[in-house]
Amino acid sequence: MANFKGHALPGSFFLIVGLWWSVKYPWKYFHQKRKSSRQHQYERLEIIEAAIRTLFSVIGILAEQFVPDGPHLHLYHENHWVKLMNWQHSTMYLFFGVSGLVDMLTYLVTHVPLGVDRLVMAMAVFVEGFLFYYHVHNRPPLDQHIHSFLLFALFGGCVSIFLEVIFRDNIVLELFRTSLVILQGTWFWQIGFVLFPPFGTPEWDQNDEANLMFITMCFSWHYLAALCIVAVNYSLVHCLF
Amino acid sequence: MANFKGHALPGSFFLIVGLWWSVKYPWKYFHQKRKSSRQHQYERLEIIEAAIRTLFSVIGILAEQFVPDGPHLHLYHENHWVKLMNWQHSTMYLFFGVSGLVDMLTYLVTHVPLGVDRLVMAMAVFVEGFLFYYHVHNRPPLDQHIHSFLLFALFGGCVSIFLEVIFRDNIVLELFRTSLVILQGTWFWQIGFVLFPPFGTPEWDQNDEANLMFITMCFSWHYLAALCIVAVNYSLVHCLF
Amino acid sequence: MANFKGHALPGSFFLIVGLWWSVKYPWKYFHQKRKSSRQHQYERLEIIEAAIRTLFSVIGILAEQFVPDGPHLHLYHENHWVKLMNWQHSTMYLFFGVSGLVDMLTYLVTHVPLGVDRLVMAMAVFVEGFLFYYHVHNRPPLDQHIHSFLLFALFGGCVSIFLEVIFRDNIVLELFRTSLVILQGTWFWQIGFVLFPPFGTPEWDQNDEANLMFITMCFSWHYLAALCIVAVNYSLVHCLF
Amino acid sequence: MANFKGHALPGSFFLIVGLWWSVKYPWKYFHQKRKSSRQHQYERLEIIEAAIRTLFSVIGILAEQFVPDGPHLHLYHENHWVKLMNWQHSTMYLFFGVSGLVDMLTYLVTHVPLGVDRLVMAMAVFVEGFLFYYHVHNRPPLDQHIHSFLLFALFGGCVSIFLEVIFRDNIVLELFRTSLVILQGTWFWQIGFVLFPPFGTPEWDQNDEANLMFITMCFSWHYLAALCIVAVNYSLVHCLF
Repeated sequence: MANFKGHALPGSFFLIVGLWWSVKYPWKYFHQKRKSSRQHQYERLEIIEAAIRTLFSVIGILAEQFVPDGPHLHLYHENHWVKLMNWQHSTMYLFFGVSGLVDMLTYLVTHVPLGVDRLVMAMAVFVEGFLFYYHVHNRPPLDQHIHSFLLFALFGGCVSIFLEVIFRDNIVLELFRTSLVILQGTWFWQIGFVLFPPFGTPEWDQNDEANLMFITMCFSWHYLAALCIVAVNYSLVHCLF
Repeated sequence: MANFKGHALPGSFFLIVGLWWSVKYPWKYFHQKRKSSRQHQYERLEIIEAAIRTLFSVIGILAEQFVPDGPHLHLYHENHWVKLMNWQHSTMYLFFGVSGLVDMLTYLVTHVPLGVDRLVMAMAVFVEGFLFYYHVHNRPPLDQHIHSFLLFALFGGCVSIFLEVIFRDNIVLELFRTSLVILQGTWFWQIGFVLFPPFGTPEWDQNDEANLMFITMCFSWHYLAALCIVAVNYSLVHCLF
Repeated sequence: MANFKGHALPGSFFLIVGLWWSVKYPWKYFHQKRKSSRQHQYERLEIIEAAIRTLFSVIGILAEQFVPDGPHLHLYHENHWVKLMNWQHSTMYLFFGVSGLVDMLTYLVTHVPLGVDRLVMAMAVFVEGFLFYYHVHNRPPLDQHIHSFLLFALFGGCVSIFLEVIFRDNIVLELFRTSLVILQGTWFWQIGFVLFPPFGTPEWDQNDEANLMFITMCFSWHYLAALCIVAVNYSLVHCLF
Repeated sequence: MANFKGHALPGSFFLIVGLWWSVKYPWKYFHQKRKSSRQHQYERLEIIEAAIRTLFSVIGILAEQFVPDGPHLHLYHENHWVKLMNWQHSTMYLFFGVSGLVDMLTYLVTHVPLGVDRLVMAMAVFVEGFLFYYHVHNRPPLDQHIHSFLLFALFGGCVSIFLEVIFRDNIVLELFRTSLVILQGTWFWQIGFVLFPPFGTPEWDQNDEANLMFITMCFSWHYLAALCIVAVNYSLVHCLF
C-alpha cells in the first residue's frame, strides 16, 4: 500500500497499542508493588487486550486480501505471483494475530509455560523486520533510509522482548518495549507525510543529502517524543490509580 | 549433493529431530512440574536419543564418504582437493556426532559439568552455519537467498542454545530450539522443491524479483508451521501423559 | 563544528564526566561494602551530578543554537534546512539532558522504577552513535576511520549500560562505562589534533595507509590510558576515603 | 613478521596458555566441588600464572622492539612512521601484559573488585581482534580468509569472557575460553604452514576457490581438535587429582 493511508493505518494501530501499554504496564507495576489483590482483574485485562489484538489482525488480513485490488486469497495465477505486497502485509498481521492468540492462551490455559507469549511476540516483531529488510531494496535513497530506521526499532524490540522470556515482569523492559511501539507508530505517520505528502505540499527531493540528514535527526526526535508520552502516562497512572 | 535428494535427506533428518524434541521437552517439563519421580526414566531417554543421534551422524559420514562418487576418505590427490563438498558435509555430521556423544557422556559420566552438552551443541550449529555461509558465494540470487535464510535459523539457534548453558532447563528456550530445528527441516525440503523441482515441474526463474519476494514470505510461513507443530505436540503431550 | 575547538569542547566534557565517575563509583562501592550509612549522602551527590549534567546540556543546546553562525532555532527557511549540523549536535545534547533529568527524578521521586535512568542513558548514547554513523559518510578515508572508532565506544557503551538495567550497581560494569567515557573524551581531542592541527603543524595526508595504521593502534593506546586513569583514581579513592 | 616463525611463535604461546588452562580450570572445578581447602593453593597458582603471563608479554614487547630490523622504540622518524607492524604487535603484547598484571592484583590486593580481571582480559582480546580486523585489508583472498577466521575466535572469546564478569567461575564458560585459546594457537601454526610453507613445499595458489573451501573446513577441524584436547585434559585431571 504505497500511499499515505497505507502508512497512516499501521501507524495508528501501533500508536494505539503503545499508548495503551504505556497505561497498562505502570498500572500492573503499581498494583504488584502494593501487593494489591487485583491480580485477577489484571489477567482479565490481558485476555481482553489479546483478544482485541487478535481480532484486529484478522480484520487486517481480510482487508489486505479483499480490498478491490487485493489478491482475494489467490497466490499464484497464470505463471505470476498475485499481489505479493498484500500477501506480505497479511503475513505480518498473521504473526501478530498468532502472538495475540498465544497471549490469550497463556492466561486462559494453565499448562502454557510463562514466557511463550513473549517468545512468539519477539518472533512476530522479527518477522516484521525480516520482511521489511528484504522489502526495501532498489528504492531511492530517502525511501530506503526512512524505512530502514524502522529496523532499529524492530530488531531492538525483538532482542528486548526475547530478554523478557528470562527477565519477566521487568517494568523497565516493558516500558522500553512500549516506547518502541509508539516510536514505530509515529514513524509510520512520518513516512507517510514524507513520501506521500497528503495536503498537496510539494514532494521531497529523494536524493537530497540534507533531507537524509534531517530525517535521521527526526527519527531520534520521534523516540524522544515516545519517551515523553510513556513518562506522562506513567505519572498519570501513578496519580490516578 | 546439489539435487533434490540431497536436500530432502537432511530436511527429513532435522524434521524428525524437531518432532521428537517437540514431544520430549514438554514431557520433561510436565514431569518436573509435578515433581514426578520419572527423572531416572528421562535420563535413559536422553541417553538413547543421544546414542541414536551419534549413530546417524556416523552413518551420514560413511554415506558421504563411500557413495560411488564420494571421496572414499581421500582428501588430496594429484594436486587437487578431492570432493570437498562431501568433506564439508562429513564435517557437519561429525560435529553433530560429537554433540551426541557429549550429550551421552553428560548423563553417563557424573563428572562432566552440566552445560557442556549445550556448549558443544551450540558449536555444532555454529559450524553448520559457518560452513554454509562460505558455501553459498557465487550462486544465482534465488539460490543464495534461499540458502541464506538457513543462517537465521542456525545463528539464532546457536545464540539460544548458548543461553541454555546459563539458563538450563528453561522450557521456552527448549521449545524455541525445537521450532528452529523443525523450521530447518521443512526449509531444506522447500529448497529441494524450488531449486530441483522433482516432478518435472518447470524450473523457477532464479533472477525474478517476485520469486525472491515470495520465498522470503514463504520462510516466515514455514516458521509459523513449525510453531504450530510444536504447539500441537505440546498439547498432545499434556493430555496424554 | 568542523574545527579544533569543535572537537576539544565535547572531548573535555566527556573527559570531565569520565574523571568524575572514576571517583564517584569507587566511592559508592567502598561505602556499600562497608555498609556505611552514607547512602543518603551518595544520593545527594547523584542528584547534584545529574542537575549539573542537565544544566550543561541546556548550555550546549543554547550555544549550538545561538552562536553567530548558528540556526537561532530556525529549522527550515526558504526551501532549505538551516544548519543541520548544529541541529544534530543540539539533539545529542538534548538526549544527554533528558538522561540527566531522569537520573535526578530517579532519586527525587520515589515512584520512578530503578533502571529507567540506565535505559535513558543507554538510549542517549545510542542516539549519539546513530547520528554519528550517518554523519561520516562521504569523507576522506582517515576522517571516516578516525570518527568510526567512536562508534565502538558508543555502541559498546550502549550495550553495557543496557546491561546495568538488569545488573544494577555492578561495579565492573560501572567502571567499564567510566573507561569508555574517558576514551571518548581523549579521542575527541585526538580527532581535533589529527584533522585540524592547532599549532601550525602540517596537515596529515588523509589517504596515507600508514596514517590509518597508526591511528588504529593509537585508539587502543587511548583505551589503555583510560583504563590506567580509572585504576589510579580507584586506588586513590580507596586510600583517601 | 610475515614469515613462518612470526606465526609459529604466537601460535605456540597461545597453545601453551590453552593447554595450561585446560588443566587449571578442571583442577579448580573439582576442588571447589569437593569443598576442599585448597583455595589458598589455587590463588597462589593464579598469581604465578599471571606473573608469567606478564613476564612473557614484556619479553614479547622487547623482542618486537629490539630485533635487528625493529623500531627500537622510534615511532616517527623523518616524516615516516617506523615499523608500524612491530608497534602493532607490541600493542597486543602490552594489553595481554596489563591483563596479566590485573589478574595478579585481583588476588594480591583485596580491594580490587572481582570481575575486573575478566573485563581487562576481554578488552585485551578485543584489541587483538580490532587490530587484526584493520590489518588484513588489501591482501590476496586466501590470506584474508585465513586471517579473518581468527576474528571468530577473538570476538567470540571477547563476548564469552565479558559474560564471566557476571557469571564468574562458570566452568563451561572457562572451558569454552580455553578451547578458543587452543584454537587460536593451532590456527596460527596453520597460517604459517599455508602462507609460508617451511619445508620447501610448493606455495599454495592464493586465488584457488578449492583452497578457500578446504581452509574453511580445516578451521572447524581445528576447533574439534581443541575440544578434544580440553576433554582429554579434563578427564586426566579428574583421574589424577
